[in-house]
Formats: sequence, structure tokens, C-alpha cells
Amino acid sequence: MNWIVKESCFDKQLVTTNGNKYMLGNGYMGYRGTLEEFSKTELVAVTLAGLYDKEGDKWREPVNAPNGLLTKVFCNDQLLSVLDCEPVAHTQELNIRNAIHHRSTEYAVSDGGALTFTADRFVSQDNLHLLVSKYSIRSTQDCRVAIETGIDVDVWDINGPHLYGQKVQLKDEVLISSSVSGELKIPVVVAERAYFSFGEELLEDGAAVRRISFDARAGETYEWFKYVAVYTGLDADQPETEAVKSVHAAEALGYEALFKAHRLLWDERWSHSDVIIEGDEAAQFALRYSIYQLLIIAPTVSEKVSIPARGLSGQVYKGAVFWDTEMFMLPFFLHSDPKVVRNLMMYRIHTLDGARRKAAEYGFLGAFYAWESQDTGDDACTLFNVNDVFTGRPMRTYFRDKQVHISGDVVHGIWKYVQFTGDESLLTSGGAEVIWECARFFYSYAYYNSVKQRFEILDVTGPDEYHERVNNNAFTNALVKETLEIALRTAALLEAKYPEEYSQLSAPFSSGPFLKEFKTMLDSFYVPQPDPASLVIEQFDRYHTLEDVELTELKSRVLNKNEYFGGGNGLATTTTILKQADVVLMLNLFKHSFSKEVKQANWEFYEPRTEHGSSLSPCIYALVAADIGSPDWGYPYFMRTATVDLTGESKQYVGDLYIGGTHPAANGGAWMAAVLGFAGLDYDGGVVHINPSLPKHWQSVQLPVTLRGDTIQLRISKDEVTVITAADYSGDLVFSVQGGEGKSCSAGENLRLALSKREYKY
Amino acid sequence: MNWIVKESCFDKQLVTTNGNKYMLGNGYMGYRGTLEEFSKTELVAVTLAGLYDKEGDKWREPVNAPNGLLTKVFCNDQLLSVLDCEPVAHTQELNIRNAIHHRSTEYAVSDGGALTFTADRFVSQDNLHLLVSKYSIRSTQDCRVAIETGIDVDVWDINGPHLYGQKVQLKDEVLISSSVSGELKIPVVVAERAYFSFGEELLEDGAAVRRISFDARAGETYEWFKYVAVYTGLDADQPETEAVKSVHAAEALGYEALFKAHRLLWDERWSHSDVIIEGDEAAQFALRYSIYQLLIIAPTVSEKVSIPARGLSGQVYKGAVFWDTEMFMLPFFLHSDPKVVRNLMMYRIHTLDGARRKAAEYGFLGAFYAWESQDTGDDACTLFNVNDVFTGRPMRTYFRDKQVHISGDVVHGIWKYVQFTGDESLLTSGGAEVIWECARFFYSYAYYNSVKQRFEILDVTGPDEYHERVNNNAFTNALVKETLEIALRTAALLEAKYPEEYSQLSAPFSSGPFLKEFKTMLDSFYVPQPDPASLVIEQFDRYHTLEDVELTELKSRVLNKNEYFGGGNGLATTTTILKQADVVLMLNLFKHSFSKEVKQANWEFYEPRTEHGSSLSPCIYALVAADIGSPDWGYPYFMRTATVDLTGESKQYVGDLYIGGTHPAANGGAWMAAVLGFAGLDYDGGVVHINPSLPKHWQSVQLPVTLRGDTIQLRISKDEVTVITAADYSGDLVFSVQGGEGKSCSAGENLRLALSKREYKY
Repeated sequence: MNWIVKESCFDKQLVTTNGNKYMLGNGYMGYRGTLEEFSKTELVAVTLAGLYDKEGDKWREPVNAPNGLLTKVFCNDQLLSVLDCEPVAHTQELNIRNAIHHRSTEYAVSDGGALTFTADRFVSQDNLHLLVSKYSIRSTQDCRVAIETGIDVDVWDINGPHLYGQKVQLKDEVLISSSVSGELKIPVVVAERAYFSFGEELLEDGAAVRRISFDARAGETYEWFKYVAVYTGLDADQPETEAVKSVHAAEALGYEALFKAHRLLWDERWSHSDVIIEGDEAAQFALRYSIYQLLIIAPTVSEKVSIPARGLSGQVYKGAVFWDTEMFMLPFFLHSDPKVVRNLMMYRIHTLDGARRKAAEYGFLGAFYAWESQDTGDDACTLFNVNDVFTGRPMRTYFRDKQVHISGDVVHGIWKYVQFTGDESLLTSGGAEVIWECARFFYSYAYYNSVKQRFEILDVTGPDEYHERVNNNAFTNALVKETLEIALRTAALLEAKYPEEYSQLSAPFSSGPFLKEFKTMLDSFYVPQPDPASLVIEQFDRYHTLEDVELTELKSRVLNKNEYFGGGNGLATTTTILKQADVVLMLNLFKHSFSKEVKQANWEFYEPRTEHGSSLSPCIYALVAADIGSPDWGYPYFMRTATVDLTGESKQYVGDLYIGGTHPAANGGAWMAAVLGFAGLDYDGGVVHINPSLPKHWQSVQLPVTLRGDTIQLRISKDEVTVITAADYSGDLVFSVQGGEGKSCSAGENLRLALSKREYKY
Repeated sequence: MNWIVKESCFDKQLVTTNGNKYMLGNGYMGYRGTLEEFSKTELVAVTLAGLYDKEGDKWREPVNAPNGLLTKVFCNDQLLSVLDCEPVAHTQELNIRNAIHHRSTEYAVSDGGALTFTADRFVSQDNLHLLVSKYSIRSTQDCRVAIETGIDVDVWDINGPHLYGQKVQLKDEVLISSSVSGELKIPVVVAERAYFSFGEELLEDGAAVRRISFDARAGETYEWFKYVAVYTGLDADQPETEAVKSVHAAEALGYEALFKAHRLLWDERWSHSDVIIEGDEAAQFALRYSIYQLLIIAPTVSEKVSIPARGLSGQVYKGAVFWDTEMFMLPFFLHSDPKVVRNLMMYRIHTLDGARRKAAEYGFLGAFYAWESQDTGDDACTLFNVNDVFTGRPMRTYFRDKQVHISGDVVHGIWKYVQFTGDESLLTSGGAEVIWECARFFYSYAYYNSVKQRFEILDVTGPDEYHERVNNNAFTNALVKETLEIALRTAALLEAKYPEEYSQLSAPFSSGPFLKEFKTMLDSFYVPQPDPASLVIEQFDRYHTLEDVELTELKSRVLNKNEYFGGGNGLATTTTILKQADVVLMLNLFKHSFSKEVKQANWEFYEPRTEHGSSLSPCIYALVAADIGSPDWGYPYFMRTATVDLTGESKQYVGDLYIGGTHPAANGGAWMAAVLGFAGLDYDGGVVHINPSLPKHWQSVQLPVTLRGDTIQLRISKDEVTVITAADYSGDLVFSVQGGEGKSCSAGENLRLALSKREYKY
């Protein structure tokens, strides 16, 4: 089976795209899919999770560490670089099974000869601080070869510089680059050990790059290794000591042992997460690739970081965490590695104070989570997030102050985790506080309409960011309602099961607004409902009065290809054209509250009006298409989502803002579409419901799912669902297909549940 | 004393400006200050009050009638026109005392001779349908003269055409142009009688212009007359019959008798309204001119029209009625001719149903008055009122749907009238209904904040239109509060004094929301208050968080001289720069509710932040400057306001929208600044308070005031106030200066009230 992403030639135009496509990472750091001789011009980046820095009044963004893997090869004094010499042959490969990157380039050298340079590298899953690489050179002719390798301290920054007091020293054969971040004065250390068994080494005092020179004999292969460790002051009190220790330990183990440890962990990861699609190789590959992109950025260890909107592929979007995590990535991790979800949710708990500060800044109670969250939870989102292409002026946008659904998204995520895993300890570890503070925020944000006798949520921006400052956005109101319900449910749960913790946790809220007020608000809270005739739910008040223009017509009005469709004078703002799924997203989120007819009516109404200007959009249409029994409507949206980081065809600019990078929300969305959509898996802590809605050409979907401590295998075809349990299976789960009777099975047993033929709309 | 506006040469560049500056009018129609030979290219317009028409999907605007005064003179077959031949001498004059326009042009003719053409015209105040003109020709040499005169049926329209089925006929020597408006099919008739005592007349069948030819003898003066009547289907069932009758009657009376009747009425008008400023000729002239501009557009007869924002100077701003009338023009008419105010307020009563429709359109109760009101009260304001100069695209603006203070402005006007005149019949003639419906509108517009436990007014645009969609705009909230109070007060008044009418008028509101709800809302209604430390009242929620930029700095950011500072991406919207007085306007409106210190602090805070992008702005700063004893701060703002239509230096474009024309609100503002500001007159139906605050170089202000049926003369100097009463004075008024004891006097007596020296801040 295919686990390889591969280029067979070098195309300079694809350097940026491939930097994303060939990413490595381990949740602690990301390493862009660049080549060994590249520098910041080609956007080489070792992006660190959770370490942010602000330079002057520029945007705050994550710190990129110096690149310890810089390596340049010279033959007879000529630099061999794909950027300068047309290679004879070139391949770049990413093995997503093992998370290892390989490049091999053959260069023509003088007198008709050829020199082949290869490099393999991986970002260790076993030791998160470690970058490991193996290189080789082989020439068809004798020649003089020089290798320059060391640490590239000239890092790429979008809003830098971030590292000050750069200092390089050699200690016990280890090159050490030390610097300190500008804002928080956090030390950043990169230690590098290059192991050569040949050549003469030249390293000038204080230099970060050494030169190894030797006479290469024709036909002989020269191989060397590098071990690089990255530590910051956030990881250890003595990051330098730790980094050097790490590098020495790595060298002692050697490349193969390190790789084996890494590979075993990746085997383990795939055993919990690989999804097999029978009958669709393209979908199979794209989905697996999407899962890979999620795995390389998952915070498996730290509960102080979450997943940024562009993963660890650089500093785009300020390395900030958006609602993407809760709404688009959570389901994958919930089903495959719930402890990652716990980390992600703990990150929200740790950043509660930032959310409280934001609420207070705007005069509200409780917690208003950051639209763009970094280390402290303070909002990195500016009020001017896009530049107007016509005037070059910053444009006032309302992402930061009006996208209040973020607090509901966080609550949704926490509750999903608790429901799914049954791990109620999250609630007593701060989760309840987050939930209640978000509910308090919404209570203070809401207004009561005395004539209509109802609470409303005014002046918000929903997921469809082309329509800012709207009233009663259906999605937002539905989430506010859910937040209030969860707040009450949490209180009831804690009071019943953890009365001591409850009385302690709820004490600070005794003067209100608290449960009584939440209840009052819930009792007369307005959530837009389907129109009795059309079944369409109006996206927000007066949406139906907007110009109902065709998308093609709207696009024909474009004057500048990078112009932003939203903002003050955006083309879409006065029309019914949406940026992304909004009502339909709500229908998916609360799928059990709406009939198939309502879902279908809204899908049909909103889809033609959706520009899909966000990579988060198509997967939702795929999910709901599957839900209503029209998987083939959804299939193109699924494929578009699943291939976003393979094709590199996503939006690269909004206004003059570069927004390239990887798309973890789409990666998560692809998984959701395949598993929760087409395969029809639906578990909320009770029965495992399975209601498949497979695309015509899919024979089956097979996947492992980790539920309440058990990892089971599911094989879902059009005829039957097979549950394969392990020898140590607890026997606790109950399975139901197509809404039928719940069935259980014992360890080692294969439960086969027949499916009745479903009417598909193709 | 100077009553003459005059040009002494012809400047083609000034044709548009002078069209406004030399306006004639009588409230029924306006006649632009163009010359006899001009056509639509020079914006000739006979703009009719109250007759509107909509062509296709263009903006609805008033109808311009064909110009019955068109007259061209030819000498030896050469057209004599200032547009084509440089005249030897040329004067254009407007006598504002008599409201008569005069032009005299001397042209060089062949062989060194000269021909002088003069024309006098007036728009009769005695018969509102009548245009009257007298012409003369005198040549220094014998020559062949031809005169083309008749009706110019090729009318100027901004969004036309509006007249269809144009037909010209000659009946009993009267040329009659008949047509019908496009939308409402209202007949528009112009009847013209040209009286010549010389020459041969040639009139082709169906032609609208005749040709009179004759041999002019050197040194002899040839004089002729024209009588033109304009009638529409709104005026009479048989407009043609009426027009012809009118013209015949006029001819029978003759020019001099017609002019005398006109002049006497104007004498009468000035006797009720002229303000004499001793010590400042420039101010004297400008103020008198401002009063003239108000008098020519006052609806003295009809209660179906109000005064458009650009008077009757053309179709600019759709000929629509804005808040300008109530807030800026009302005071002048209240003091000089209260029956005009009654007409203006009856117009609002007649358009109540339009306001009800607008409220219902947006889902509110009661009456939401039109931002741009025409004949029906439906809103002529579009959602896209300005074009973006950078893209040429219509820009979504929030004049129409968010400037809710208009309903409060209307209520304020009605109550002012009732208070001032004591004429409570306005309340029982529909005024109470308007007041209650506006209060109901605000009740349904308001939202209750459960945490702050108060009603708020969200999402509005205040007078400062550069900041759209703000919450708790101080000005708006203050007006809402006043509306609720007036609603309750009206009910109490009617119930006590007119119980039968009250029970009938209030019956439709018995199911509420009505008085009980108004009371509830008032009891916890939020109006922004002065900050305890700075005394500054925040213009709206979070105004103080905006970029606090200097006006010069803001202007340095301008990229296109016509770019609009407001709207979605306007330069001012994200800064503290205001379009016009907003908080300061509120301080003026509710001057008795705020201390001098608060007024001064806000004047000093907001004035440097005010762009005065509206001609309504400077007068308010003049008023409040006078109020706080700093008249010389205010003087430049007064002068700027009073000269706006003399200099023609106001804004001509917003985006690519032409907004030229006269500025009646500024004219009214100039009067307010001089009389209510500097002279310090303050009457609200009780005591006549006078608290002068004269600019340094003003010796006195003298003016007639009509109060409760008495017309008295006031002479206000720095030392004393003299009240001069007529022989038939009722003796009912009480006068108080500088807050001192009230004094009264008897008929024919001159009451002298000494002033103590006031501390002025110069």
C-alpha cells in the first residue's frame, strides 16, 4: 500500500508548497519539507510549539529555531544545489508511515561524471527534542568534495527577528547555538553533532558551520550523520546542558537505533488511527496523508499547547490556535488518541485567565476565549487583520471582538471529551470553571428583547466571516444554548458525583450570574428555527434581505484577485454568498436535533451560496451529504478537503496577507467526512451507532477506534458492519447499526451486524 | 443697509454656485439663480415642492417643471449669451429684501455698438404658482433684434426623465406645456404669456418657443413682460385651466401690481424675522442672507411638504426631508412664523404611515421615520448611498436603517412647537399618535441588559455618521429618553385637558406596549453621563478605544480627495475623528441638564476631533461656545455657517455623489448661533430668558420675536436688554435676563433690563 509522497524532479515554483507537503514534526516542533542546502529564502523553518515572541509592534508569532540540519555539498569547489544547478535526477520523498523524509539528487560534475547526494531525516517521536539525519555522497568520478554543515542561525521570520544574543560555541564536538527570545527572554538552544568518519574538518572559532573536505573516490559511498537537539527555557532550566546531553545520547545510540524507536512509535500510532478505504486509492492516500498531518502536530506530551491553524508549518496566522482545534481536529483525536484531546482541552483550561481578561476588556463577565490564542490565552488577533488591496490600508475586521462562538466551541470541546471518554476529572481539573465562565460570558453578552420576550445574541460574526456584526447567527445562538445547557449539566453532574469539589468550584460564582440566571436565559432563549414552508434556517436576522446573487456573478465583480470578500466593503458582505458552512455546520454539530428534510433543505439552499473561502468549509457539506443519504454529493467536498495539502491549491493570500501553510482543520475535516460521514460512526459515550453512507465506489471503510479504553476494529461495508475485538477487550461497548437494536460481543469475538439496503441519492 | 447679493462680471466657473446663491423661491417652487438664456446644461431648474418621481430603478427625486422664463436675444442674427460672447459689462443681482433677481448684460454688437439686455424676475409670494419677469433691450445702434422666448421643456434631471407626453399648445395667447409624471401620472402644467408691444411674432405650431423680430432703433428701450404659472395635479383637478386663468389674471394686473403685492408680503416677512447686528457688517449680511434662504423655501401654505435638505435648489439628495428641518430650521420659524412650523409638523403627521411601514419592514413596532423623507414618508434613502471612489462600487452605508434618532428628532420638533406656541391642537390632530408611535418604536428597538440591569439602544448611527452601528450613542439615547418622557407627558396632558380625545386616541394602543412599558423602560434607561474626572461624555460605547489621531494627520492619509471618511473602510471610522457635532449637539439640545463645566470640557474635547464634514456642525460649536461664555470661540463657526451659500465653499462631492445646492440647515444654524447663542434668547413657553454672550465686536443684536401671538422687538446689547412692545401687545410675557427675576411690561412700553458685566473668555 502506498505511504509515499514523492516528487521526481525539482521545480523551483513548488518550493513553498513542498515545504508544507513534505513536513515532518512531532508536536514539539515542525520541520518544513525543505532541502538540506536551503536557507530562509526557501522558508526553512524549525517551528517551535508554544514559544511565542513579539518584535516591536509587529504581530506576535511562534519562534523558529536555528536549523541544525543545514548541509551543503561542494564538488571541485562548486556548490551543488538544486537552486543553482539543474540536477540530472532528483527525488524528494516523504514516507508517512515512518514519518521520514528522503531526498536524493544526482548532479552532473566535470568531465561527464555524476555525484549523487542523499539525505534522510526524521523528527524523532521518541525524543521530541531530536532531529536526526543521515547523508551520503557517491561520485562516478574521483573528485574533491567539501561539505559545509552546521547550524543555520539566520532564521526565517515573518515578523522577526525573535532571537537575540546569538552565540555559537563548540563543546565536546558539539556545536551549540544559544540565543534568547526578545520579548520573554526565553533561551533557545540548538545543539548539533555531525559525525564524519572521513575528511578534514575546518571550523573557525565561533562559526556555526564547519567544512569537511576530502578526495572522493569514484564509486565509493561516503556516509555521515547528524544529531540535533532543540531545547528552550520552557523545557528545562538548563536547556544547553539538556541539549548537549541529548545529542551525546543520540550519537551513542546511533542513527539506526534512533530510527527504530521512532518507527515503533509511529507503528503504534498508525495502529490506532489508520483508516483503510477499499475501492478508492486516491481517497485512501489523501485520507492517510491527512491523518499524517494531524499526527505530526499532535501535542502528545504537553498540555500547555494546542494545535495552531497552520500546524507547525511556520509562523503563518501567528502560530495561533483557533476554533479549528475543537471543531475540526478533536473528533479524530477523540477516536484515536484521547489523551491528546485531554492535552488540548487542558490548554484551554490553562489559558482561562487570558479569556477572562479579554471578556473584561470588552466589559463582559466570564471568559471570552481568544480568536487567535497563543501561550497566555490573550488574543493575538488584531482589529485590523487584513489589508485592503485597493488602498493598502489595514481594514477593520471583526474576527477578534465579534466571533464570540469561540467560547462555545471550547465548551463544546470539553463536553465532547468528557462525554466521549467518561473522564470527568477534566471537569474538576478546571473544565467546569471554563464551562461556567463561558456561560457567564454569554449571559453578559446576551440582551433581552422586551417585545419578543426572549434573549438574543446580537452583533456577532459567525463562521461565515463575510458577514460581520450580525444578529442572532443561528450557529452562534445554538452554541450559546448548548453552553448554557452544559453549564447546568456540569453543575448537576458535579453536585451529584463530586459534591465536595462542586461546592469548592462553584463557591466563587455564588453572587451570580450563575445557574439561576443560566436557567432564566435558557427558558426564553432564541435560536433561529427552520422556516415552516421552506425548512431553511435563516443564517442570521435579515440574511434573506441580502442580494441573492450567484457565486459566478459575484466572482465576475472581482477587480483584484486578492481582494477580500468580507470586511467593510467586501463583495460578499451585502449578498447571500457565504465564506463557509455556517447553518450547515450547525446542522452537523447538532445532527440529532434536526430532521433529514431540514438538513437537506438547508444543504440545497446554502451550498450554492457557499464560496468555500475557508478550507474548513467543504468537509461540512460532505458530512451532511452523507448524513442525508447523499454521499456522492459529498464526495467531491471530501476529496477537496483531503487533498488540500497535497495539491497546495488552497488560498495563499487574503488581501496582501500570506496565509499559506498546512491545513490541519481540513485534515481533521477529511477524517470526519470519511469516518463520521461516510462510515457513519456516531459515538457519544453511550451506544456506538453506525449508519454508513458510503460513496458508490467505496466497498468498505476499516478503522481502529479507541473507546473507553478499548481499541476495536471496525469494518464498515454496504452490507454489514464487522466489529473485531482484541483478546483483552472489556466487552463493555454496545453497537447499533442503522438505529437498530444494540448488540455487544465478548473479547476476541467478531460481531457481524447486517445492514439493510439504504436508499441512496446519487 | 445692504440687501444686495451681486456679481459684477460673468465667470463661467461660477454658474453652478451662483445657481444656488441667487435662488428665488416661495415654498411652492424654487427657481435657481441662472440666467435667461441658460438651459439644463447650466442647471436651470424650477423645482417643485412635494412632487416626486421615480424613473426605473434610479433614485426617486423631485420633479423639475419646464422653465417658462427661457429667453434668448439675438442681434443681427447672432445669439447674445454670456456663455458664447464675452460681455462688455455684466451684473447679476439678488435683492433679498424683495426677493427679486436682476441681470443686466451689455454686449458688443457689430460696428462698435453695444446692446444692453436686462431682466428682472421674481417668484411671487402672493400667488405661489406665479413666475413674473420683466425684460428690456437697448442698443446704441440701429440693429435687427430677435427674441426667442417661451417654455424650455428640455428640463434638467439628475435621475430623470420624469415628464412624459410633453405637449405644447397655444390657447388665447398663452403657451401651455402639459406633461405627466412617470410614476404617479401627475399632470404638470406650465402656462406662459409673453407680452410684447412691438415686433413680429413667429410661433410654429406645437413649438414651445416663439420668435419676436424687430428693428431696434439706437437709444430706444424695448421692454416686455412674461407671466408664467405652474400647476400640477396635486394643486388642482384642472391644472391647465388654473394655470391659464392664473396667467390671464396676472397679465391683467400687470408687472408692477404683481411686484407690489409680492414686495408687501416680503416686507411683512422681514418685519417678523430680520435680525440686526450692530458692529459687524459681514455677519449682518451673512445672517440676513441665511434668513432669506430659509424664507424662500418655507411652506407657508401646504402642510403636505416640509423643507428638503437642499431646499428647492434642485434634485440633490433626492429633494428629501431629513432631520435638518426639526433640528436646525425649526427654531428660526418658531420665533418668526410659527404657522410654518405647524405645517412642517403636520407633514410628519401626514407621513406617519410611511414611518410605520419602515418600522414594520425592520421588524419593529411604531414609527421609524424615514431618513430621507418624501411625499409618502417611505424612506428614499438607499442602503448604498455613497460610491467607493477606489472601486466605483456602491458602498453599504447605515443612514437608512441605523439613524434611528430621526424618530426622536420628529418628536422633539412636535413637542417644541407645542411648548413654544401652546398650540395643543397639534397633539390632537395626529401629533400624539406620532409621539406615541415613535416611543413604541424605541421601546421595540431597545434591549435590556440583564447584567447591567438597564435598557440600552444598540447598533445605531448618531449624527456623527463616520461611526456607524455604534452602541449607546449619547445623543441618540438622550433623544430616546426625551421621546419616552414626551410620550408620557403627552398622555398626561391629553388625559387631563382633553379626556375624550385622549380616550379615543389612546384606544388603539391599549394592548401595549404603551405608557406602562415606556415608564418601565424610562426607569432603567441608560444615557451616557459625564466621566467624573474628565467630565467628557463618551460619544458611544468604546469610543475612547479608537485611534486618537489628529485631524491633520488623518487628512494626510487621504488618497483621493473625494473619498468618503465613513462607511465600511472609511479613514475616520476607526479613529476618534467625528463628522459633526454629536455629544456637543446633545449638550445644546438639553442645555439645561448640563453644567457649564461639562459643556466646556466636551467642547474642548470634541471640537479638535470634529472634521465638520457636515454643514450642520459648526453652528453647534458656536452655540455651545456662546452658552459657556466664550462667544469668540464660537464666532468663526458662526461665520462659516452663515456664509456657506455665499461662498459656495461647502463639500460638493461625497464619493462620486454630487451634493451641491443650498444649505437650509446651515442657514437655520446661523440664525440659532446668532439669536439663541450670542443673543442668548431662550423661550420654551414659560419665561423669556435672555442671557447674552455677544462676540467682542458686536454692539447689539436686535430682532422681532413672535411669541404666543405677540410680536415684540428685542434689542440685546452687552449692557442691557430692551423689550419694545407694540400698541396691541397683550402684556402676557415675562422676561428675565441672566437668570434674574422675571419682569413684564404693558403695551407700548419699553422694558429695559440692565445686564451685569459677564466674564467672557476671549
